[in-house]
Amino acid sequence: MNVFIIGVGLIGGSMARDMKQLNPEAKIYGIDANNAHLDEALTLNIIDVKATYEDLSLADVVVVSIPVNALVEELPKILDIVNSDAIVFDAGSTKFNICKAVENHPKRKNFLACHPISGTEFSGPSAAIEGLYKGKTNIICEIEKTSFRIQEKALAIFQQLGMRIRYMNPEAHDKHIAYVSHLSHISSFMLGKTVIDKERNESDIFDMAGSGFESTVRLAKSSPAMWTPIFEQNKDNVIETLEEYIHNLETFKEMLENDEYERIYSEMDNANKIKEILKGIPQNKN
Amino acid sequence: MNVFIIGVGLIGGSMARDMKQLNPEAKIYGIDANNAHLDEALTLNIIDVKATYEDLSLADVVVVSIPVNALVEELPKILDIVNSDAIVFDAGSTKFNICKAVENHPKRKNFLACHPISGTEFSGPSAAIEGLYKGKTNIICEIEKTSFRIQEKALAIFQQLGMRIRYMNPEAHDKHIAYVSHLSHISSFMLGKTVIDKERNESDIFDMAGSGFESTVRLAKSSPAMWTPIFEQNKDNVIETLEEYIHNLETFKEMLENDEYERIYSEMDNANKIKEILKGIPQNKN
Repeated sequence: MNVFIIGVGLIGGSMARDMKQLNPEAKIYGIDANNAHLDEALTLNIIDVKATYEDLSLADVVVVSIPVNALVEELPKILDIVNSDAIVFDAGSTKFNICKAVENHPKRKNFLACHPISGTEFSGPSAAIEGLYKGKTNIICEIEKTSFRIQEKALAIFQQLGMRIRYMNPEAHDKHIAYVSHLSHISSFMLGKTVIDKERNESDIFDMAGSGFESTVRLAKSSPAMWTPIFEQNKDNVIETLEEYIHNLETFKEMLENDEYERIYSEMDNANKIKEILKGIPQNKN
Repeated sequence: MNVFIIGVGLIGGSMARDMKQLNPEAKIYGIDANNAHLDEALTLNIIDVKATYEDLSLADVVVVSIPVNALVEELPKILDIVNSDAIVFDAGSTKFNICKAVENHPKRKNFLACHPISGTEFSGPSAAIEGLYKGKTNIICEIEKTSFRIQEKALAIFQQLGMRIRYMNPEAHDKHIAYVSHLSHISSFMLGKTVIDKERNESDIFDMAGSGFESTVRLAKSSPAMWTPIFEQNKDNVIETLEEYIHNLETFKEMLENDEYERIYSEMDNANKIKEILKGIPQNKN
């Protein structure tokens, strides 16, 4: 089995590690716009060999794990080259624009639009880890546009990786993911900014920060190169979530200004429901 | 050594567990407004015996780990009863009002105003764990108002627990802690609210939530009974942090509306500095 990883960072690199471990006979080819990443992936034994688009006709499986703006540009070119039996799937955090980019491609049936809900705040080949996908959810969009044969092969791979599958249309994916992922990132980035701006000249202050602060700003370590195009592609949904979030923060501030502590208590008590909700998140079960 | 824990929840209970382990001869007395918590603490072997304020004259060490509104009320009463050798320290997340409440007390010198930067999002006796304080920062305010003898004994206890000590005045404590702790809690509570309100009828959606969402809303599980009085006592500082945070979120939204993606990239790139800052947080070193 010839597996091509296009974009050998956290997502593609972790996928490569698992696929190699589960299929020791697989040959892992790496393609990346950043040649230093490719060398690093080779040194770390994430890939077996460096490759280019010209080699793509050898591919049985192509994992495209590049920023979403690049996905929209590159996916049609990749589909142009692969042979008619190849499985091509992505891992983009937006789905509408990506599905749109290939909707009329003659090899649309070779493509499976995926969003594995997994990752860490780190990036690059050195961030790649084994078992990243185990127990995680993989959201698949427009399954009906992929050929049965390709569906079957791809699902076998996801099963091997230990993923749970959910089906959704691209519009619904982008709308809901804005709430449960994109908004978290902005809230964290802006929390980081607020504290850094204020405490810039008082580095001692961070001795006062505990694990709570750390947990809340963890996502502010995320890659701007990955996240800027996500926010761009999901602009309308993200703006809607931001408006609701800002409104809720404004209301909280007004309650505080008006000394409405019973309402504040009650708002926090309601938000405590997140305890039950988080129990349903797969990684908590492991 | 007779150790009294007033408020046998996460903070007091964890303190009790460590002090008993480090000093097996210590007798741990528990006092709590909630008798069920006291029974639970006894069953869990967190305390050796249930007690009341009348027993406080037996105390060598008194740990007062109750909500900050109760601290302001109870601390003077506790100091009234303890003997003149007793060490009394608190663990309140605000310091100005608490120091103010005892500033003219005849036994002010028996009191040490403390804020151990440690905890989890859980509460109650069952949340108490061993080693909670190891490597954590303990902020001590107005050290000069505590007698040398009491200072010395208290610092010996904190050293035993493995804590790092930082000295600060109450005003500075409350101002900075608003940024590195109180704001994180509000951002998390309101993120939880925003998502719960929107996705109330779509519980399936939480299958889409990953570890990033979980990390960002973790603090929304925190106790409203503990946090409402903290926000009340630190109202002015908290409002200031909220205004800056909301302003930054508004600016981010406007950049998105105006398609200013280079500025968005640059804001996130700046917030990435939090990586270096978080490396300085004690719990990351362990």
